[in-house]
Amino acid sequence: MLKRQTIDNSLRALAEPTRRAIIERLSQGPTSVSDLARPFNMTLAAVVQHLQVLEEAGFVRSEKVGRVRTCRLEAGGFDQLAAWINDRRSLMERRFDRLADLLAEPEPNKETKP
Amino acid sequence: MLKRQTIDNSLRALAEPTRRAIIERLSQGPTSVSDLARPFNMTLAAVVQHLQVLEEAGFVRSEKVGRVRTCRLEAGGFDQLAAWINDRRSLMERRFDRLADLLAEPEPNKETKP
Repeated sequence: MLKRQTIDNSLRALAEPTRRAIIERLSQGPTSVSDLARPFNMTLAAVVQHLQVLEEAGFVRSEKVGRVRTCRLEAGGFDQLAAWINDRRSLMERRFDRLADLLAEPEPNKETKP
Repeated sequence: MLKRQTIDNSLRALAEPTRRAIIERLSQGPTSVSDLARPFNMTLAAVVQHLQVLEEAGFVRSEKVGRVRTCRLEAGGFDQLAAWINDRRSLMERRFDRLADLLAEPEPNKETKP
């Protein structure tokens, strides 16, 4: 079972348009933080802060080689979110199955009536 | 391809803790709006507003019979979000495949060197 906290982090991370734009960019391939920041109309520090939120939620990882920090997408955050969605879906389906079973049962009182 | 707008709506809808609590409650089964609102420390109008956001994003649908409005989870929103996640995952995997191909190729300059 996933911790509520984790899903809260994932969904809060993805709820911000700039962070989603960062994910779209990184799904084309890894890039340095400065290249990543260029198209955004904000300071490098602001972009780094968004990256930290995405890193904490498991959507991005970064590594520094020399003076260059390179970011790439990370599967973990997507896997967690997919698991949350699947849990909700299977709860829905289980309820539909129970409803179908109920509808398939013979009506209990009908036989005894004249 | 999913419209950006739709994913924005889905993620914004899920980013709010009360709306996620509503989804958790509804994954146990359909319920009337007034029963749904009871455990929340907010006005019925505020809960209805959250429900509208969830309805617009395709996570909930409601129907009114007589004086009672009943809400239930809807698969559509979850399906759209799952599709968005899968798109991101397959972009990641495609890049890994390309990288693997590249690593499997013989180094082009090695043969020609003495």
